[in-house]
Amino acid sequence: MRDQPSFDQMWDELAPIGRSAATGGYQRFAWTRTDHDLREWFAGQAASRGLSLTLDRAGNQWAWWGEPSSGQRGVVIGSHLDSVPDGGAFDGPLGVVSAFAAVDALRLQGFVPQRPIGVVNFGDEEGARFGIACAGSRLITGALPADRARALSDEEGTSMAAAMRAAGLDPAVVGPDRETLDRVECFVELHVEQGRGLVDLDHPVAVGSQIWPHGRWRIELPGQANHAGTTRLADRRDPMLAYARLILAAREAAERRDAVATMGKVSVFPNGVNAIPSLVTAWLDARGPDAEQVLAVVAELNALAADAGGSLLQESWTEATRFDCGLSDRISAVLAGAPVLGTGAGHDAGILANAGIATAMLFVRNPTGISHSPAEHAEQEDCHAGVRALTSVVAELAG
Amino acid sequence: MRDQPSFDQMWDELAPIGRSAATGGYQRFAWTRTDHDLREWFAGQAASRGLSLTLDRAGNQWAWWGEPSSGQRGVVIGSHLDSVPDGGAFDGPLGVVSAFAAVDALRLQGFVPQRPIGVVNFGDEEGARFGIACAGSRLITGALPADRARALSDEEGTSMAAAMRAAGLDPAVVGPDRETLDRVECFVELHVEQGRGLVDLDHPVAVGSQIWPHGRWRIELPGQANHAGTTRLADRRDPMLAYARLILAAREAAERRDAVATMGKVSVFPNGVNAIPSLVTAWLDARGPDAEQVLAVVAELNALAADAGGSLLQESWTEATRFDCGLSDRISAVLAGAPVLGTGAGHDAGILANAGIATAMLFVRNPTGISHSPAEHAEQEDCHAGVRALTSVVAELAG
Repeated sequence: MRDQPSFDQMWDELAPIGRSAATGGYQRFAWTRTDHDLREWFAGQAASRGLSLTLDRAGNQWAWWGEPSSGQRGVVIGSHLDSVPDGGAFDGPLGVVSAFAAVDALRLQGFVPQRPIGVVNFGDEEGARFGIACAGSRLITGALPADRARALSDEEGTSMAAAMRAAGLDPAVVGPDRETLDRVECFVELHVEQGRGLVDLDHPVAVGSQIWPHGRWRIELPGQANHAGTTRLADRRDPMLAYARLILAAREAAERRDAVATMGKVSVFPNGVNAIPSLVTAWLDARGPDAEQVLAVVAELNALAADAGGSLLQESWTEATRFDCGLSDRISAVLAGAPVLGTGAGHDAGILANAGIATAMLFVRNPTGISHSPAEHAEQEDCHAGVRALTSVVAELAG
Repeated sequence: MRDQPSFDQMWDELAPIGRSAATGGYQRFAWTRTDHDLREWFAGQAASRGLSLTLDRAGNQWAWWGEPSSGQRGVVIGSHLDSVPDGGAFDGPLGVVSAFAAVDALRLQGFVPQRPIGVVNFGDEEGARFGIACAGSRLITGALPADRARALSDEEGTSMAAAMRAAGLDPAVVGPDRETLDRVECFVELHVEQGRGLVDLDHPVAVGSQIWPHGRWRIELPGQANHAGTTRLADRRDPMLAYARLILAAREAAERRDAVATMGKVSVFPNGVNAIPSLVTAWLDARGPDAEQVLAVVAELNALAADAGGSLLQESWTEATRFDCGLSDRISAVLAGAPVLGTGAGHDAGILANAGIATAMLFVRNPTGISHSPAEHAEQEDCHAGVRALTSVVAELAG
């Protein structure tokens, strides 16, 4: 099986959905029309394979081959279909498409599952619209309280509850979903690598070892709106200066503490050329192999923000996630020689692992390491290698 | 005449138009529905006084008492009605309302003009929507080429031409308007002070001496979009760092060179919490009493931006504007004892002065000096003093 025609066809079908003509990047945000099109595509793939489709209490989609129950739990593969703003084609969809392709490959082989096999599409993994990553998996595991989620609002002031309702999901039912989780024996998420580990190691596929501890903080820096031409420098309370100091301090502290810190999002009010801002709202993303060092970076920035009358508000925090050792060992045995890598990216697999489900990850080589960008890429040959690896893993786990 | 009932009534009529319930600030942007409402209000004021209303080739509104011509030029008073984002109530409207109130006061006195008197509402003075301040006066004087103006676009991608057309103005006619300018003997713009000069001097009204040289620059800082969690710090090309260094350098250079520099507006792409930006676009507003020093600040920042692969693009530049000495002297003689002040703010009066029209300004005390903010203020008593001063000035100039 050197070729994956069903993978290539699915990939081509997904390619135009939510792609910006200007940048080639994707705008696939939770509970939008584009998200709806992606969900329709997923439902169609399930139907065409005779898989039974269920929605859980957060609207995540599960397509089952066989009937899972708490007595007969299933092997679940898949990932997510949404994107960051102007994101790449692979982060998320590669895992979903590879999952369906693995089902096809198993059937071609005449494989008879000894336990049910599920393909999942987790909603709102990137948190691009409402600010909370992995919202779909956090909701069903209870890591994100339903009340808090419903009240989140996007940049246009639409609440998540209203967005769900507009998309046909009753926000009142949203919440922890033990019944859904009880059907899952283990979860294996295949994902494009978001760094250059496999390039350096010259391998197409790796087994995941851990997800770094990571979090997001919102930083509010107040100032005094005033006229840019007539206000003496000494009379100003310009929050842009504090913002600039925080950007530089975040980088410096992260370097010193072997972490990464990013301030990639900002909102300025009123954002006029000739107006000193009255408020700068910035966001910090901080991660690293060691939680203590990451939180020390945050503490340093909090002190600096406090000096400017501002504050850091934690929007999310996820401790280090070590994937299930027994599961990873079985996978490594199947994929003899595949390297083992950690990652700084959060994933639904991490959320499920923290909820006590045995999870593992597979990474597919990314030639530039670039992700969350239209330049994100994986060679077709490596994608096919990923499908073959996933197929072997599922054959082992459900055989 | 200690009281100005017509001023107070007009002020109350204008107050709700374009005011944000959340902040109390104004969103009065060119060629919007709110702008239309303000223009309707202006037209109604003209009609109720029997003034003849004309639109010039940039859509600026002129209300004439008497018939101006190149043989019998008129004395023009007025200002603008648009605002910066979340601006104050006084910047602009105070000059327009005071102009109509001055006409009322002259008529109550039985004044018989020896030359026509005009009240003007210049469009798009703040440049909040399309980025060019004083667009209305720049267009009719030719300081802003019509082709360039028509092609400007707002944040939603609407061109100025499309916005004008939607508001009922044929963008094809927009351009220099010698006929309109030939009707103007002189222009006196009353404006709320945007600093604390009159507070320090304990006077309600000042005569303007000059407008500082001032300009706007757009700064494009390119980066490499990438994942915030998985990209090593050393591998990043994060334009937010260059942006931060520019903010701090602008402040430091302005302090050193006795100028003011402000970076109050920024646009980040893709502006995601977990995405290193691929582009930061920032704007610089720089002014000061000495043009050479202001341009030296800009040159320093340009060098810094170039180090980061970026550049500064001049969006506008206006040399120092000294108001007409003969006119200002006549006004100072009428307003015996009124102090004389310069300003760092650009005004339509400056654009007309640079086009060879005799112009002058009056400033009304601002108790906090704050402007371009909902906190912008002038006491009612000082506003009335402004109307009395303007009335005396017009009586002198048109008598």
